[in-house]
Amino acid sequence: MTLVNRRRLTVEWGHCDPANMVFNARYFEYADWSTALLFQAALGMTKPEKKAKYDAEIPLVDVRGSFIKPLMLADVVEIASSIEVFNRSSFSVLHQFFKGGELVAEVKETRVWVEADPSKLTSKPIPSEVIERFKAG
Amino acid sequence: MTLVNRRRLTVEWGHCDPANMVFNARYFEYADWSTALLFQAALGMTKPEKKAKYDAEIPLVDVRGSFIKPLMLADVVEIASSIEVFNRSSFSVLHQFFKGGELVAEVKETRVWVEADPSKLTSKPIPSEVIERFKAG
Amino acid sequence: MTLVNRRRLTVEWGHCDPANMVFNARYFEYADWSTALLFQAALGMTKPEKKAKYDAEIPLVDVRGSFIKPLMLADVVEIASSIEVFNRSSFSVLHQFFKGGELVAEVKETRVWVEADPSKLTSKPIPSEVIERFKAG
Amino acid sequence: MTLVNRRRLTVEWGHCDPANMVFNARYFEYADWSTALLFQAALGMTKPEKKAKYDAEIPLVDVRGSFIKPLMLADVVEIASSIEVFNRSSFSVLHQFFKGGELVAEVKETRVWVEADPSKLTSKPIPSEVIERFKAG
Repeated sequence: MTLVNRRRLTVEWGHCDPANMVFNARYFEYADWSTALLFQAALGMTKPEKKAKYDAEIPLVDVRGSFIKPLMLADVVEIASSIEVFNRSSFSVLHQFFKGGELVAEVKETRVWVEADPSKLTSKPIPSEVIERFKAG
Repeated sequence: MTLVNRRRLTVEWGHCDPANMVFNARYFEYADWSTALLFQAALGMTKPEKKAKYDAEIPLVDVRGSFIKPLMLADVVEIASSIEVFNRSSFSVLHQFFKGGELVAEVKETRVWVEADPSKLTSKPIPSEVIERFKAG
Repeated sequence: MTLVNRRRLTVEWGHCDPANMVFNARYFEYADWSTALLFQAALGMTKPEKKAKYDAEIPLVDVRGSFIKPLMLADVVEIASSIEVFNRSSFSVLHQFFKGGELVAEVKETRVWVEADPSKLTSKPIPSEVIERFKAG
Repeated sequence: MTLVNRRRLTVEWGHCDPANMVFNARYFEYADWSTALLFQAALGMTKPEKKAKYDAEIPLVDVRGSFIKPLMLADVVEIASSIEVFNRSSFSVLHQFFKGGELVAEVKETRVWVEADPSKLTSKPIPSEVIERFKAG
């Protein structure tokens, strides 16, 4: 079983565009921090604590968003985040967005484990102790 | 031949994250407005003029971003945007991001032609006169 | 006594700039939604419910931010929001940002009560029943 | 005479809120980069080049925005930016936002000259050679 982290957020005025819907770029901001919280749940460290311990960042190299039904102002959304797969130095994260229990959007991220300077995008093997922590229960 | 719209922008401080790179969600903001400018180039109308004429919006239903090399603070990026395909009521737009002539990122959007209320995401056939305008030269 | 609404948020990666601090514009986004939540606490209605009942928005006409100490990635911030004064058709909101109990920033907003079309910025008298609801205890 | 830097931008879909107006936080993002461009015009260096030369950042400590008339989707805005005053280690920047020649908003920033670590917000005297460069003509 793999760890699933759930968080709940409310759609704010500043997240919405003139169609009264969440502006599409915000879904990726929601997803980005959901990944940070998934790692925090698994490792028991905040993002800067993880950085301090491993000198590693996990930049995004590929991401796909599918928008099934819109999220509107003041909607409460639950985001369920989990690792789909760990490869040697990359991994993918699935974020499912629910509104009233219904799936309304998905974001799938592919990220790499990068040490030292994240702008180099030079990936390193993911430490096995990290991977272990995502095995739930 | 299909119309290609090119625009140039500079990476701002507020677009960058603590890794000094463009925060991933911003690529989708860049792409979103690049689509608006592509339509403006094709139709000779701004986004609100298009809305006034057709009572239509073109919400995103699916999008994929691939990040090859990072964009950093003050980088000048050229975005080349073109329609990949027009279907009956949906279409896809390819945005290629270049830095110093080198491809550094791609965003592929799938959008639908929606009349009246965009939050319904109920697509309509794209008017053929619209499609015609994207044939360049 | 006037109502004070408190909320807690965590500084996300996408909120921070290359100096690892919250990008200044985000304070105003934090404040904007804090005002929405203050009204929600007072009126017992979400922002769209308030809009439906009063056909009113409360656009910002003037705002001032003072940044005493920076907010950094993963910081937990508490925002205490309260009405400073209600005038006939305008009012001001004070947002105080605390980190570990210490005041680190303030945002003071002046907003107007506008009916029908907020882009007109034509203010109307604030309903007295609205003002009443901000008197706590 | 003091240097005035002017730039022109177009209000994008993702900048606007459900009232079809520029979301208030975006004005500060517009102003922030306008200051970077003002310094670039004065010093002949981009922001990272300035950082490399002086190891200095210019974080915001106080800012005030006044919104006179709204900016709407697709509006073309001209921002005129100039230094109001240089103090020993702080300075203020005035940004005036024009739409069709009419003043629609103002943002006044107070910034400090900070060397090494901007999160310390420990100001240093502004180099006189920097101040000299803002004297136009």
